[in-house]
Amino acid sequence: MMTLYDYLDSGNGYKVRLVLAHLGLPYKLVECDILKGETRTPEFLAKNPNGRIPTLQLEDGSHLSESGAIVWYLTEGTKLAPRDRKARGETLQWMFFEQYSHEPYIAVARFWRHYLPKLSPLQEMDLPERMAKGYAALGVMEQHLARRRFFVDEQFGLADIALYAYTHVAGEGGFNLDNFPHVNTWLARVANQPGHVTISHRN
Amino acid sequence: MMTLYDYLDSGNGYKVRLVLAHLGLPYKLVECDILKGETRTPEFLAKNPNGRIPTLQLEDGSHLSESGAIVWYLTEGTKLAPRDRKARGETLQWMFFEQYSHEPYIAVARFWRHYLPKLSPLQEMDLPERMAKGYAALGVMEQHLARRRFFVDEQFGLADIALYAYTHVAGEGGFNLDNFPHVNTWLARVANQPGHVTISHRN
Repeated sequence: MMTLYDYLDSGNGYKVRLVLAHLGLPYKLVECDILKGETRTPEFLAKNPNGRIPTLQLEDGSHLSESGAIVWYLTEGTKLAPRDRKARGETLQWMFFEQYSHEPYIAVARFWRHYLPKLSPLQEMDLPERMAKGYAALGVMEQHLARRRFFVDEQFGLADIALYAYTHVAGEGGFNLDNFPHVNTWLARVANQPGHVTISHRN
Repeated sequence: MMTLYDYLDSGNGYKVRLVLAHLGLPYKLVECDILKGETRTPEFLAKNPNGRIPTLQLEDGSHLSESGAIVWYLTEGTKLAPRDRKARGETLQWMFFEQYSHEPYIAVARFWRHYLPKLSPLQEMDLPERMAKGYAALGVMEQHLARRRFFVDEQFGLADIALYAYTHVAGEGGFNLDNFPHVNTWLARVANQPGHVTISHRN
C-alpha cells in the first residue's frame, strides 16, 4: 500500500488526499508536524531531501514529492486527468500558476496569520505585498471562471483540485472573497463533487 | 507558425527557447520588456491574464503560459519528454521544485542584484533569507547529482532544462557555486548537449 507523509492543515497535502479520495485509492497516512521540524529529520530527508510534505511512498518503495507531481502521477489514465495534449498543457499552466502566483501569497499569508503566534518584522513588512499578490491571483481566477464551470475543458479535474486547496481557506489568511462571485460559485461546485472530502478528513 | 512572447534575460523564457532549439521548431520571437511594463498592457493581458512571459501563441491562435506547461506541451512525444509514468512524475517533481524552492530565491536574487539599480528596504531585509534558501536548493541538487549524470533516468530531459535555466546564471545573483562540484559538472554536461543555445541567443 502507498504511504502518504502529510500534515492535515497543508493545502498542498490536501490536493493529494483529495485525489486519493476521488479515486478511491487506499493509503496509509503518516502525519508529520511541520511546526515541530518533523520533516527536517535525517529519516525524513532520506525520503525527500527537500524536507517537505506531501511526500508519497509508492508501492515499489520509492518516494515522490511535490503535490503537483504526485497528483499527476496518481491520476494518469483516470477521469481526473486532462484528456488530450492541449488540456494537459492548460492543466499544467494552472497548476504552475497556483504554485508560483497563488500559493506563495495566499497559503503563506494564511500560515503567517492563522498559525504563527506573532509575525517577525520582515513578515510584517512583507504582508501587504503578499495580500496584494494574493488578490491579483484571485482576480485572474475570477476572470477565467466568469464564463466557465471548471478551469479546463468544462470538466472537473486536476487544475480545479490544485486551485481549490488554498482558495477555499483563503479566509484564514485574511482574504475577503465577497468580490469574487464566480470563484465562490466554483468553490461550491468543487465541494459538491461526488467523492469530495474536507481538508481535515482522515482516510 | 508559433509566436513566443518573451524577454531574453528571463530564465523562464530561456527554458522554452532551449526546448524549441533542441527540437528544431521554428517560431517568431516577440520581445516584451518586462522592466517597462510591456506584459501589463491590455493587449498582453488578453494573451495571458497573469501578465507574464513566456507566453506562447500556438498554431491554432490560442495562448499557453507558464514555462513548465509550455515545455511539457512542446516536448510530448519527443526525445526530451520523460519516457514512462514514473519518469513523468519525477520530472514534474523537479520542475515544481524549481518553480517553488529554487526560482523564487535564485532567480529573484539575480533580478534584484543584477537588474535593479537599488534594492528597496523590504528587499534589503529579505535578501539574506532568499540567499540561504537558494543555497539550500543548490544543496538538494548537489546531493541528487552526486551519483547521477542527469536529473531523471540518466537521460537529458525537461528536468535538466528547467533547472539549468537559472542555475547557470546563479552567479549573477551573487551565488558562489564553488562548493557544488557536481552541479558544475552537470551544468557543463547540459551546455555540451547537441543543439544547445545560450540564454541570449535569438532564433
